[in-house]
Amino acid sequence: MIAEKMMKMVEGSSAIRAMFEEGNRLAKIHGRENVFDFSLGNPNVEAPKRVNESIKEIVDEVPSLELHGYNNSNSGFEDVRECVANSLNQKFETHFNASNIIMTVGAAGGLNVILKAILNPGDEVIVFAPYFGEYRSYVSNYDGVIVEVSPNLENFMPKLDEFKEKITKKTKAVIINTPNNPTGVVYSEDTIKEISRILLEKEREYNTSICLVSDEPYRELVYGDIEVPFLTQYYHNTVVGYSFSKSLSLPGERIGYLVIPDEMTDSENLKVAAGVATRILGYVNAPNIQQKLVMKCINEKTDLSYYAKNRDALYKGLTEAGFECVKPQGAFYQFMKSPVADEKEFVKKAKEYNILIVPGTSFGCPGYVRIAYCVAYETIQNSLPKFKELAKEFGL
Amino acid sequence: MIAEKMMKMVEGSSAIRAMFEEGNRLAKIHGRENVFDFSLGNPNVEAPKRVNESIKEIVDEVPSLELHGYNNSNSGFEDVRECVANSLNQKFETHFNASNIIMTVGAAGGLNVILKAILNPGDEVIVFAPYFGEYRSYVSNYDGVIVEVSPNLENFMPKLDEFKEKITKKTKAVIINTPNNPTGVVYSEDTIKEISRILLEKEREYNTSICLVSDEPYRELVYGDIEVPFLTQYYHNTVVGYSFSKSLSLPGERIGYLVIPDEMTDSENLKVAAGVATRILGYVNAPNIQQKLVMKCINEKTDLSYYAKNRDALYKGLTEAGFECVKPQGAFYQFMKSPVADEKEFVKKAKEYNILIVPGTSFGCPGYVRIAYCVAYETIQNSLPKFKELAKEFGL
Repeated sequence: MIAEKMMKMVEGSSAIRAMFEEGNRLAKIHGRENVFDFSLGNPNVEAPKRVNESIKEIVDEVPSLELHGYNNSNSGFEDVRECVANSLNQKFETHFNASNIIMTVGAAGGLNVILKAILNPGDEVIVFAPYFGEYRSYVSNYDGVIVEVSPNLENFMPKLDEFKEKITKKTKAVIINTPNNPTGVVYSEDTIKEISRILLEKEREYNTSICLVSDEPYRELVYGDIEVPFLTQYYHNTVVGYSFSKSLSLPGERIGYLVIPDEMTDSENLKVAAGVATRILGYVNAPNIQQKLVMKCINEKTDLSYYAKNRDALYKGLTEAGFECVKPQGAFYQFMKSPVADEKEFVKKAKEYNILIVPGTSFGCPGYVRIAYCVAYETIQNSLPKFKELAKEFGL
Repeated sequence: MIAEKMMKMVEGSSAIRAMFEEGNRLAKIHGRENVFDFSLGNPNVEAPKRVNESIKEIVDEVPSLELHGYNNSNSGFEDVRECVANSLNQKFETHFNASNIIMTVGAAGGLNVILKAILNPGDEVIVFAPYFGEYRSYVSNYDGVIVEVSPNLENFMPKLDEFKEKITKKTKAVIINTPNNPTGVVYSEDTIKEISRILLEKEREYNTSICLVSDEPYRELVYGDIEVPFLTQYYHNTVVGYSFSKSLSLPGERIGYLVIPDEMTDSENLKVAAGVATRILGYVNAPNIQQKLVMKCINEKTDLSYYAKNRDALYKGLTEAGFECVKPQGAFYQFMKSPVADEKEFVKKAKEYNILIVPGTSFGCPGYVRIAYCVAYETIQNSLPKFKELAKEFGL
């Protein structure tokens, strides 16, 4: 009954499900508080208070037929799109209007919409390892081909020479994700400038259009004074994909947006194509209550100090235990070198200590593991003695 | 910049957009109340009062991290899925549990999920004309091939002889939609039994599995004593797709579900595949607030008398004016024969009377038009003299 392409994913998915069930099994035996589940990027910081207040206000204020009905456009409510455009203009000195904004079912929905809109079968999409593993599925949905730039194990910044070599006439898109999942690295402005320069050069060389897709769910999650460049200012063919999942702790509410700037090649058609893709992929529109919520909460912020505290405690504990880590500058993931080349062996051993982490192979970077620290502070604290024992077992 | 497949749709979409803009232009000139916009299936009946009450309760009752966080499964909240299963069991004497239910981003999301899960490129999907035109896009998303059974212009019931002939070794799915958009016809139990018999026979003949996809957003919208058979009771390989868009007047909130019964071939894998498809198509999960809303409002009903009144007035007015119509038994669409073979000419002329309707060609049934009567009663009343004039112009 099942499509061949899907059958492989079903088998793969069983492994993840098995891990999830293992977590539940362990929790039953040892108690939930004694299982250190670092596997998911599900924020443990509550949504800002204003979120729930706003939902109640929206229900009272917006006429029912408007609040719950179809939007006039598949791209979303006009007033919501305008609000997003204005907010971006204020923050980044851009010049967007409602027509540049497509409200989406989270960033995952947005990435699917833009890839559906631009990819012909066989088109190549470049990603920098390590990268969010779901990109593979999103690209495969539209019969695109993922081309990986190998990881720079020094500091996890993109390898630009290799990037340049891997751009071909068939390159249709490049996905970048900064602050990065799984490494927490933030690309510097110089790096962004260099990526833009290379893309412009290659567009001219091949007489093609290459879309830089900037996946930015972690845009506001940066520690200290680090600046996250806004990419449309650097390269004309940039599409930004954003999600409120992390900035407002709303991952289950499925709300985000795409930015399609006027400077893009074929921009007017691309805006229409994104609306059509939203419709035919079955999203139809981003959910209404969540759209209206954006208007009320666009300036709300998550409690960054919570994640910062976790980051510092975890990084300190892990390095003291002898593990090799690059300190994250953003997002809420710690990428860590496995003490053995086959990190799956390490992940398996960690499970014996009730520690659940994800192998780097899932992110195109074997030999490493990802630790999602968007958990309770106590989970970090209580896990550190276990990490220490684990380190000892591997001779660190 | 745009994918070739999409470019054609962008051109097609412009026509629809032009119609929408035309409506707005007419409204500016003549006033919104003097434009008779019958083009969209956007309910003009407000959501039941309980809906907005429930949203406020949910916000107060459900812990923030659960309410807004990721679901444990891409298929949705366990308690919501259980609630849907129990509700179906009560109504239809079925034996579903949470595992049979996948919460989806409306029916459109559900159809995409199941087609993604089952279609290999080149697989055939049979539809009975006239049919909801979006099926073409959904099937094309997964490189399936639409096979149309021609319309039975007598009564718009499916042509079963032709259906039987058109089933091949490549037939992977059949989509049916009863109560039907655009005709309002409800398939009788005998018809359902015959469809099931034919499918079983063909599954045996070709040694294949054929999935009957029942698209049921209008299940509760039936007039009088007409029964809508629940299809999983008739044919083992039935998947039901449901949406609360019409039954609760929530089309913009994007909430529905799929039912994948245990009796289906490869049912356990298919459930997992549907969850995986939900994830990788970028839905990730149906929006949370709307999921929880289902638990509170599953027994709420829309005001059917509102649509019944519209139906009766419209049908009476149109037939008295001389138009040829089959009286709808369900949904909120009147399908009507165009007085000229090229119905686009008729649609164009109707626009001169500020009447906006959709050509039957969009539904695979040229020579007819669709009139969506989910509008204000006054719109119907005020439009009827215009329809009369229109009829006269065509010599009726």
